[in-house]
Amino acid sequence: MFTFDINEKDDLWCIEDPGFNEDSSKYYEGLLTQGNGYMHVRGSFEEGVRSVKQDEEYDRKPANVTLEKHKKQSSKWGTYIPGVVGKHPYLFTEIVNLPFFMAASFAVKDEDLDMEESDISEYERYLDMRDGTLVRRFVWNTKEGLKLKMEYFRFLSFADKHLAFSEIKITALSGEGDLSFRSGIDAGVRTNGFNHFENVLFTEDSDSISVSLKTNGGNSVLMSTKLFLSDAVETAVMQDLSRINYIGRKHLKTGECFVIHKVVAANADCDVEGGNMEARNVSGLYAVKKENLADYYEAHKKVWKNKWDDAEIKIVGDEKTEKALKFSTYHLLRADNDENPNVAICAKGYAGEAYCGRYFWDTEINMLPFFIHTNPQGAKNLLMFRYNTLAGAKRNARAYGYKGARFPWESSVSGEEECACWQYADHEIHVTADIVYAIMHYVKATGDRDFIKNYGIDIMVETARYWVDRVDKDMKGRYVLLSVMGPDEYLPMTNNNAYTNHMVKFALDTTVSCIEELKEKGEFDEIKSRLNITDEDMEAFKDVAANIKISFNKDTEIILQCDGFYDFADLDFSRIWKDRSRCFGEFISQEKNYRSKALKQADVLEMMMLFPDEFTRQQFISNYDYYEPITTHDSSLSAAVHGIIAARIGRDDVAMDFLKRVIDIDLSADKKGAEEGIHIANCGGLWQMVVYGFAGMKSGMWSDEVTFAPNLPEKWQQVIIPINWHGEKKRYVIDKNGFELR
Amino acid sequence: MFTFDINEKDDLWCIEDPGFNEDSSKYYEGLLTQGNGYMHVRGSFEEGVRSVKQDEEYDRKPANVTLEKHKKQSSKWGTYIPGVVGKHPYLFTEIVNLPFFMAASFAVKDEDLDMEESDISEYERYLDMRDGTLVRRFVWNTKEGLKLKMEYFRFLSFADKHLAFSEIKITALSGEGDLSFRSGIDAGVRTNGFNHFENVLFTEDSDSISVSLKTNGGNSVLMSTKLFLSDAVETAVMQDLSRINYIGRKHLKTGECFVIHKVVAANADCDVEGGNMEARNVSGLYAVKKENLADYYEAHKKVWKNKWDDAEIKIVGDEKTEKALKFSTYHLLRADNDENPNVAICAKGYAGEAYCGRYFWDTEINMLPFFIHTNPQGAKNLLMFRYNTLAGAKRNARAYGYKGARFPWESSVSGEEECACWQYADHEIHVTADIVYAIMHYVKATGDRDFIKNYGIDIMVETARYWVDRVDKDMKGRYVLLSVMGPDEYLPMTNNNAYTNHMVKFALDTTVSCIEELKEKGEFDEIKSRLNITDEDMEAFKDVAANIKISFNKDTEIILQCDGFYDFADLDFSRIWKDRSRCFGEFISQEKNYRSKALKQADVLEMMMLFPDEFTRQQFISNYDYYEPITTHDSSLSAAVHGIIAARIGRDDVAMDFLKRVIDIDLSADKKGAEEGIHIANCGGLWQMVVYGFAGMKSGMWSDEVTFAPNLPEKWQQVIIPINWHGEKKRYVIDKNGFELR
Repeated sequence: MFTFDINEKDDLWCIEDPGFNEDSSKYYEGLLTQGNGYMHVRGSFEEGVRSVKQDEEYDRKPANVTLEKHKKQSSKWGTYIPGVVGKHPYLFTEIVNLPFFMAASFAVKDEDLDMEESDISEYERYLDMRDGTLVRRFVWNTKEGLKLKMEYFRFLSFADKHLAFSEIKITALSGEGDLSFRSGIDAGVRTNGFNHFENVLFTEDSDSISVSLKTNGGNSVLMSTKLFLSDAVETAVMQDLSRINYIGRKHLKTGECFVIHKVVAANADCDVEGGNMEARNVSGLYAVKKENLADYYEAHKKVWKNKWDDAEIKIVGDEKTEKALKFSTYHLLRADNDENPNVAICAKGYAGEAYCGRYFWDTEINMLPFFIHTNPQGAKNLLMFRYNTLAGAKRNARAYGYKGARFPWESSVSGEEECACWQYADHEIHVTADIVYAIMHYVKATGDRDFIKNYGIDIMVETARYWVDRVDKDMKGRYVLLSVMGPDEYLPMTNNNAYTNHMVKFALDTTVSCIEELKEKGEFDEIKSRLNITDEDMEAFKDVAANIKISFNKDTEIILQCDGFYDFADLDFSRIWKDRSRCFGEFISQEKNYRSKALKQADVLEMMMLFPDEFTRQQFISNYDYYEPITTHDSSLSAAVHGIIAARIGRDDVAMDFLKRVIDIDLSADKKGAEEGIHIANCGGLWQMVVYGFAGMKSGMWSDEVTFAPNLPEKWQQVIIPINWHGEKKRYVIDKNGFELR
Repeated sequence: MFTFDINEKDDLWCIEDPGFNEDSSKYYEGLLTQGNGYMHVRGSFEEGVRSVKQDEEYDRKPANVTLEKHKKQSSKWGTYIPGVVGKHPYLFTEIVNLPFFMAASFAVKDEDLDMEESDISEYERYLDMRDGTLVRRFVWNTKEGLKLKMEYFRFLSFADKHLAFSEIKITALSGEGDLSFRSGIDAGVRTNGFNHFENVLFTEDSDSISVSLKTNGGNSVLMSTKLFLSDAVETAVMQDLSRINYIGRKHLKTGECFVIHKVVAANADCDVEGGNMEARNVSGLYAVKKENLADYYEAHKKVWKNKWDDAEIKIVGDEKTEKALKFSTYHLLRADNDENPNVAICAKGYAGEAYCGRYFWDTEINMLPFFIHTNPQGAKNLLMFRYNTLAGAKRNARAYGYKGARFPWESSVSGEEECACWQYADHEIHVTADIVYAIMHYVKATGDRDFIKNYGIDIMVETARYWVDRVDKDMKGRYVLLSVMGPDEYLPMTNNNAYTNHMVKFALDTTVSCIEELKEKGEFDEIKSRLNITDEDMEAFKDVAANIKISFNKDTEIILQCDGFYDFADLDFSRIWKDRSRCFGEFISQEKNYRSKALKQADVLEMMMLFPDEFTRQQFISNYDYYEPITTHDSSLSAAVHGIIAARIGRDDVAMDFLKRVIDIDLSADKKGAEEGIHIANCGGLWQMVVYGFAGMKSGMWSDEVTFAPNLPEKWQQVIIPINWHGEKKRYVIDKNGFELR
C-alpha cells in the first residue's frame, strides 16, 4: 500500500496549528497557505468547517485600508491562480477565489467528520516549510464507536506547477463500520462576498471529473481530479449545484487501513504556456499514475531544496528568529512565479483576499531586494510585470490628464488603476518613481544592464514624461508636487512630500544618465525613435530634475515630511490610543487623523533608508527621534524600516523590539494577522531587517561590492547569508567582528 | 357629466411641455413636478413610457457629486413622501420612491396608448403654477380608426394633503370601438436602482384598492384609490406582481364621451398627525364623493391663492424673469411642508432622487430667506427640523471623536451623517455654524426671540462645544480649523477656510451674546441646568471666538480663501475647459482639480454676501475681480451669489448674465437641469437675487427695518415684493428711484 515518504518533523522548519478553535481557525488557514508560484491554496481543512457557508454573498465596500473590518468567520477557503481575475462592482478588478480542489469529506453513518463538532483527539497539524507540505493527523472517535486514525498530506507540485497531490490514510484503530467519502472540487466559493463565476460546468470522463468556469473578468479555468484508492472500492460521481465529487464507501475493521490519493490538474487561459488549456490539463493529469506518485513528490522536493539552497539564512544563537525568517522566506518563495512576467506578488501573498490580490509598491521596495539576491530571474520577472503593464500605466496617465505613464497605486493584471479609494489612487504617485529605483537596484546588483536597454528605458522615459506634466511651478520658480500622499498614508494630500520629490528627482536623474550611457554605447538611436524622444523631452527631464523642490541637505536637522508639516495638529497619543495592541487608527476618526501629526508608517525615514549615503549619521538619529514617537506603525511596512535604522544607529533594544513586532505581524497567534493572508511585504521586510539591519549589508544599489557592517544582537553568534551578486551565488558568514565569504 | 372647472391657460403662469421626445421627457417630468408639501409626484405620464422599465435595478455608487452621471432613460417616475426613507447599502439613508398612484393606461384592441409609439396629434401639456395642476391634452389616432381626444388633469390637494385627484376625459372624435383602461397603483419602482420595499401587499375592498408596504428603513406607507366613472361601466380588480388596478372597458362612438375620476389617499407611519395610519387613510378616502369633487378642488385652489398672495413677486417690464421667479416660487411653496418639523426641503425639492433626498446647508443659506419673508411658520419649521435632529448631530460629534453637536453635511431624518463621500462628510463642517447664522436671521426678521430660548440656545451651546473641541492651536497661539472644505467643494482639505472660520466666530459670538441676553432676562438658569453649561464652557466659547484665526480685516485687499491659497496650482482654463456649456469638472481629473485654483462656487464671496457690513465696497470689487475668473460655477449655488454681488457693485451686464444662468439652471430645455429634480436652492437663489441683488433689500439679519437700495436692470420698471416682517405682511414697490410700502 503506497504512501508518500514524508519528512520527519523538524521544529525549526515546521509551523504548527495547535488544534481547531473557531477564533483562530481562519488565522491558521492563512498562515499555512501552500503554493508553487502558479497556484495557491489556503490551509483549510479538506472537509471545511460545517457551520461556515463558503458561498455566502455580502457587500464589501471600498474603505480606508487601515480600518477595514473583514468578515468574521472561522473558515475561508482560498484557491488562487495569479492572473485569474474578475470585476467587482465596487472594488474593481480583483483576484478570483477559485473552486476548492482539495475538498474531501468523510462520514460514518449520519455523522460527518468536522473539526468543530466531531470528537477529535491526538490532533496534530503542521506546514513543513522544507518542501511546502501540509500534514494533519488526528483520531476521530465516531459516535458509532469506530475509532479512526486520519492522516492527511498534501502539496502543490513545484516541479509540475499545474498539479496538486493529496493523500489521506485512514486506519481503523478499533470498532467496525462503513466509512463513506466524498472527494472532489467545490465551486461554492465567493471572493470578498461576490460571485465572479459566470459559467460553472461540471463534467466527468472515464477516469476524472472536472470543473470549468469563466470569470466575469473574462478568464477561463479548468480543474480536473482523479483518485487512486488503495482498495478496489466502487466509486460514483455525484454532483450538486456547486460541487462535483467522487463518492464511495469502505467497510473498515480494527487494524484495517485505506488510502485515497488525489491528483488535481489546474490550468487557466492566461497561463504563460499558452496553447490549448484543455489539452494541457488532460495530458498533465493523464501522466500521473499510481506507480509514479513517488516520483512527482521527489521532483517537487528537489525544486524546494534548490530554492532553499539559494535563500536560506541561518542565525546561530537565535532559532526563533531563524524560524520566523524561514517562514517569511517560505512564503516569498511560494508566492513568486519566476516563469510568469504577467503577474507580480500581491499584497497578501496569494493567501487571502484582502487588498483584492493587487500589486503595490511593496513589490519593488519591500520584496524585490530578497529576489535580487536569491533569485535574479524572479526579480527580473517582477520588473517585467511593470514593463508588461506599461500600456495600462499610460492609460492611467491619460485618464488623469497627463502625458507619459503613471503606474497605479493598486495594480491588477492590466496596469490600470484599481484602487477604489481616491485618496490613495490619486495621490500615492510615488510608486511610479519607486519602480525606477527598483530597476536600478536590480541592474546594479545583477549587472544585467541589458535590462535598461530592452525594457527599463521605456519605463523611465514614459514615467519621466508623466512627472514633467505632473509638476507645477511655485512662485520661486521651483517645480513642486502638490497634493501628494507619501508612504505615510495618514496624510492624504500634502505638498512636496520629501520622499516623493526626492524619489522623482532620482528617477529623472537616472533617466537622463541612462540615456547618456546608451548614447555613449551607440544604442540610443533605436530607442530614441521607438519612444519618440525629443530634445524637448530631454531638456524637460533635466530641468525638472534640477529644479524640483528639495527642502533639505546634509545640514538639515529635521527633514520635514512635507510643506507645512509643523502646521498639522499635535496629538496626545496617551489620551487617544488606549490599547496599543490595536491599531491607532481604530481610536481616531479618519478626519482627525488626516489633519494630525500621526504617521502611519516610515516616510522621511523610508527615504533615508533608501538613500543612506545622502544623510549623516546625526540626521538618522535626529529624524528617527523626531518621527518615531509620532509614528503609529499601523502599516505592516513600518516596523522593519524602523528596525533597520534602529539597528544601524545602535539602538539595540529598540531594534530587538521592532524585530519582535515584525515577526509578530503574521506569526503572533494573539494578533492573528495572517487571517486574510500573509503580510508578504513584511516578509521581505524581515529579510531586509536581518540582511541590511543586523548584518549591515550595504545595499547593492549604493555599492559595487558586497559588504557588511554588522550590528548583530547580543545572542546572535553568527549569521549565514546566501547572496547572489552579478550572477554568482555567494555565501557570507557574518559575526560581531565582521564577515567572510564562504 | 361632472368635470373640474379648470383655469384658463395663462402663459405667465404655465410651464409647457412641447411634446414627447425621448431626450427631454425625463426633464419635463422633473420640471412639472407637483406637490403639496406632504407628498410629491414627478410630472410623468399616467401610462408611463412603454420602452422604460421603472423597476430596473442597478448599482449606484457614491461619487464626486459634481461629476456623477445619472442613468439615462426617457422616464423616471417619482412619488415621494418626505420622511419616508430606506437604507441603501452604499448611499446610506435615502428617500424612497413610492408606488406611482397616478398610474392609468389605455388600450384600443391590442394597441396601448404610448406617447412614444402611438399616433398623437394636437399635443398640449402644461403645469399651471397658480394652483399646481397638471394638464395634458391630445388626440390619439388609433390604428383601429377610432380617434380619441384625451384630456388629463391632476393635482395633489394642498387643503387635504393626503389626497390626490385626477380626471381623465375621453371623447370619441370619430370612429367606433372598445377602449379598455387600467387605473391603479404601481409599486414597480426603484430608488436609485435599489429596491427598498420589504413588504408590498395589495388589498381590495368594496370601493377601493390599496397598496401597503414597509421600507427597509422601517417606514410604513399605505396608499388607496377609488374611481368614479361617468358611465356605469363594469370594473374588475386585477393584480400582477407589482401593480394593482381597476380594469374596465367602454364602447365609444363618434361624439361620445367618458370621464374617469380617480381619488388617492396616502398616509405614512411618520406623519405628524400620528394615530392610526389605516384609519386616517380610510376616512380620508371615504369622505370624497363624486358629488363633492368640486369642493376639494376649490379648497385646494384657495390654499394656493393664499400662498401666492404672500409670495408672488411682480416684475413690471420683464415677464420672462417674473415667470422664472414664479417657477422658483412654485417649487419652493410646493416642496415645503410647514406643518411638519421633522423634515426640511431636500436638495432636489422632492422632484427626483439625486442627492438621495438629503438636506444640506442649502436649506439655511439659500432657501430660508424666502420663507422668513413669505411664510415665517415654514421658516420656523425648517429650523425646528435642525432642533429635532440635534440628537443625531450629537451622535455625529461623538462618532468623529468630539464633544457637542456636529450637524451632518448630508442629513436625512435622524440628523446623522449620511454623506457617502468622506471628502464632503468629514470636512464641510461649516454647515454646523451656518445653522446658527440662519437661526439669527429668522429671529431678527420675525422677532421670534422665544425661538432662541426654547430651541436655538440648545443648538448654539451644543455646536459651540463641538467647535471648542474641533479647533487646534497654532504656534502663535491662535485657534485654527485644519482640514476643512469651505463652500468651494473643489478644495477638499484646506486650513483656515476664511468662510468657515468667520462663520464659526460668528456662531460662538452669537452663542455668548444670546446667553448674556438670557441672563439679563432671568431666563438662563433653567437653560443652564438643562444643558449643563459650565463656566468652563463659557470661557472656552469666548476664548475660541476671540482667538480663532481670521486673516483679514477691512484693509485686506484680497481675502485668501484659506491658508496657502496662492500655493495651489494655476490653471490655463482656456486650454482645459473646451466646452463652457458643460461643467468644468468634466474636463479635469479630480486629482488635478483638487490641487488647483479653480473654485466650484462662491466661497470668500459667499462670506462677503452674508456679512456685507464687514467689508468695504472696494473689497467687494477686488475680491469679485480676483475670484470670479477662477470660479467655474459648477455648483448651482454659485451663480446667484455672484449675480447679487455683480448687481451691487454695478456690473449690470454681468448681473444680467448671471440672472440668465440662474434661470437656465432648471428652465433651459437645452441643459435639462431638472431631469433628476429641481435645483431648489437655486430657486431660493433666484428669489435672493431679485430681492437682495436687484431690489437691493438689506438682509433682515443686518437691519432693523426693511430697506431697499435698488440696482434694477434697465428694462425693469417696477418690482413688487411681499415681505413678512415681524409678523406683518407688507408689500413693497421698488423702482429705479427708490421704494415705497404699499
